[in-house]
Amino acid sequence: MTPLELQHYLDDRKRLVEKSLDAHVPSANRPPQRLNAAIRHSLLGGGGKRLRPILVLAAAEAVGGSIAPVLPMACALECIHTYSLIHDDLPAMDDDDLRRGVPTCHKAFDEATAILAGDALLTLAFELAATPIPGQPDGAVLAMIAQLARDAGIHGMVGGQMLDIQAENRETTLAELQNIHIHKTGALLRACCLIGARLGGGDEGQVRRLNRFGEAFGLAFQITDDILDVVGDPLIMGKKPGNDQKHNKASYPALMGITQARQEAQNMVNAALEALSPFSTAADPLRALVALLLDRTH
Amino acid sequence: MTPLELQHYLDDRKRLVEKSLDAHVPSANRPPQRLNAAIRHSLLGGGGKRLRPILVLAAAEAVGGSIAPVLPMACALECIHTYSLIHDDLPAMDDDDLRRGVPTCHKAFDEATAILAGDALLTLAFELAATPIPGQPDGAVLAMIAQLARDAGIHGMVGGQMLDIQAENRETTLAELQNIHIHKTGALLRACCLIGARLGGGDEGQVRRLNRFGEAFGLAFQITDDILDVVGDPLIMGKKPGNDQKHNKASYPALMGITQARQEAQNMVNAALEALSPFSTAADPLRALVALLLDRTH
Repeated sequence: MTPLELQHYLDDRKRLVEKSLDAHVPSANRPPQRLNAAIRHSLLGGGGKRLRPILVLAAAEAVGGSIAPVLPMACALECIHTYSLIHDDLPAMDDDDLRRGVPTCHKAFDEATAILAGDALLTLAFELAATPIPGQPDGAVLAMIAQLARDAGIHGMVGGQMLDIQAENRETTLAELQNIHIHKTGALLRACCLIGARLGGGDEGQVRRLNRFGEAFGLAFQITDDILDVVGDPLIMGKKPGNDQKHNKASYPALMGITQARQEAQNMVNAALEALSPFSTAADPLRALVALLLDRTH
Repeated sequence: MTPLELQHYLDDRKRLVEKSLDAHVPSANRPPQRLNAAIRHSLLGGGGKRLRPILVLAAAEAVGGSIAPVLPMACALECIHTYSLIHDDLPAMDDDDLRRGVPTCHKAFDEATAILAGDALLTLAFELAATPIPGQPDGAVLAMIAQLARDAGIHGMVGGQMLDIQAENRETTLAELQNIHIHKTGALLRACCLIGARLGGGDEGQVRRLNRFGEAFGLAFQITDDILDVVGDPLIMGKKPGNDQKHNKASYPALMGITQARQEAQNMVNAALEALSPFSTAADPLRALVALLLDRTH
């Protein structure tokens, strides 16, 4: 896949996901207007990359599935991601003013509304995830809802956010940092790949391989995100760099230096590509996506 | 059902629900310890009545179902209720210090931990709700997950909480008050009855009737709760009375006086009992539960 082909692919999928998200969230003219406006502000107002839903769709494609049936589940993953950003930005958490280039939810509205907008999006995610999938047994969808909840909850994303908060303002080892990332961002990114593969109709082996791809992708993502926080362009990032340092947070560059961090990211990208080795060109979008992570940091 | 029989019934069901909740939440000794401790504090530390899970179990029984298969779904409803209390108590919302007789989550821990504990419980709810039910098609469970999400989300509980916040410190009409209650507390109480009936194996007509029961139960519950806030005993309530007045919140007693509010509660109890009229003695716990609401206020 050439860079241009990938760009077209990503633009197309982004449009598809955003159209579907827009259809699932009530208009800001309908009550409760303030809540709906806040949800729309964070979900649709800031132009996110839609990486998680695109991973779901791409994983389904990689196993030969079509994308329309998994679109509601893909949107569910974006709702969960967005809710986590809204809550993480709150004054009691990271206290950020800017997200995806626009004011954070509690800045544009207020804290109570932001808490509720996050709660509403997390709840909506499971409404979308409970959509039956033509050609797949309902039991498979049930199993993937449970998987999603595990990876988004205590043993996944929420637990990782707790570990992250507890690690602020004190020495963190590389093993602890890795543990935070595996939970805080890694679990949900892995879930996207696993769920997309399973609901796209993949067999056991394919699902296992895409799970492994998602795991490596998640780590590569976090390491490159840490690097971007040091060297990044705020216009590209949509938020101010230097955030980790401001919060005295551990990061790969801080613990091992930029050069070593770049090497580590390269290793993870290699592991991700290795997991995809038996797949046909149907997995090319996933291959291009993981390569793109590294490109952002150069 | 005599008062003593009802008490035994409630004690037994409460024990069952709490044992199951305890099994589903990680020990506070396991990481992330602080998160698990906060979840346990709010879910298991304050001795709630477990009204919502008991309604799920009682609705399943009313249609001739057994309770063990719907126990995970019953626990899901309690997790959703508890998360909503944790978030409602936050400083940005109702700013309460005491809940169920113990310090609120953000008082016992801190705001960030309380936000995450709520998020984790909401997520856990859907993991539990996604448990397959022996004897019921997986598609029915999927449909009830979607139902639960709708009643807990924008068009239900979360939306109602938003309306409630927006109604503070200004004149509220009876119609607006009713609308807030139908969403904020009514939707989830109704969902308990509907979901219990459906997953207990009830037919269309039974499910419709238990949905109507739940609707009337929810309104009776809210009106009597408002009355208790005026005349209640803090030892029984586990929180200080006078809360509505403190927050300048509209309430039935404030809008129509205590006597008329009691009459309105009686009307709702009658409507709830009428919805149960074709049911056998299997619905006696539901009958006794709705009658108990009125008793609390005398």
